[in-house]
Amino acid sequence: MFKLDPRIEKDSTFIKDLPLCQVRLQNDSRYPWLVLLPRENGLTEVYELSSDQQAQLMVESSLVSKALAKSTECKKINVANLGNVVSQLHWHVVARFENDLTWPAPIWGVGTSVPWQDQKRAEFIDSFLTNLAELFN
Amino acid sequence: MFKLDPRIEKDSTFIKDLPLCQVRLQNDSRYPWLVLLPRENGLTEVYELSSDQQAQLMVESSLVSKALAKSTECKKINVANLGNVVSQLHWHVVARFENDLTWPAPIWGVGTSVPWQDQKRAEFIDSFLTNLAELFN
Repeated sequence: MFKLDPRIEKDSTFIKDLPLCQVRLQNDSRYPWLVLLPRENGLTEVYELSSDQQAQLMVESSLVSKALAKSTECKKINVANLGNVVSQLHWHVVARFENDLTWPAPIWGVGTSVPWQDQKRAEFIDSFLTNLAELFN
Repeated sequence: MFKLDPRIEKDSTFIKDLPLCQVRLQNDSRYPWLVLLPRENGLTEVYELSSDQQAQLMVESSLVSKALAKSTECKKINVANLGNVVSQLHWHVVARFENDLTWPAPIWGVGTSVPWQDQKRAEFIDSFLTNLAELFN
């Protein structure tokens, strides 16, 4: 059974399972920030996935990126596997704006998370899932 | 013909062309830091590559990551496409250590680059290319 690191579980909210990855929303309304978690235990580096899984991660990262870009009309998508703090393999997909808090610097490790308001989170997830579904059609 | 952004050209050194990407060494000895540039002009986002190119980027990213990890015996590989400053599509592959300058925070936009000494750069590139070649055998 796939086990989620407790810090990732606490800091993010389940959105959807794709064929390889669980898609979660970071509990930080400062950025539209999604996290993809390949449902394999005990991995840290992208290259520890099988070749097929690596290709699938790229497919899912791009679908999520496109849907996120459409929902947010952002300036740039940032994708990354860092994992210096939480080692469980996870893949960030973040929408960036020229007027966001840390632009053009990266977002990680800056300040304190600001939780989403319930309604805004629900609206964001609804928009994202609608745009994601359209990419599968 | 593939055109390199002049800032990327100034800030990094050519190492090798892989089937999709040019591999360059960032001119910053604080981190073992490689940059992969898909040889396509006018792209900014990973998802603007064709599906085959996206899969190939993942293949090349993992090969470069494995060779870099072997050369450096690092704690973690960080991979990312940010592109908030230089928009030309480029992919970072960075070896991280628990005692490096900014661990566990990301490396981008911190302080000032420290150029490589010629001999150390040559030794690093030699080691990296040897480990990369072994992965192709």
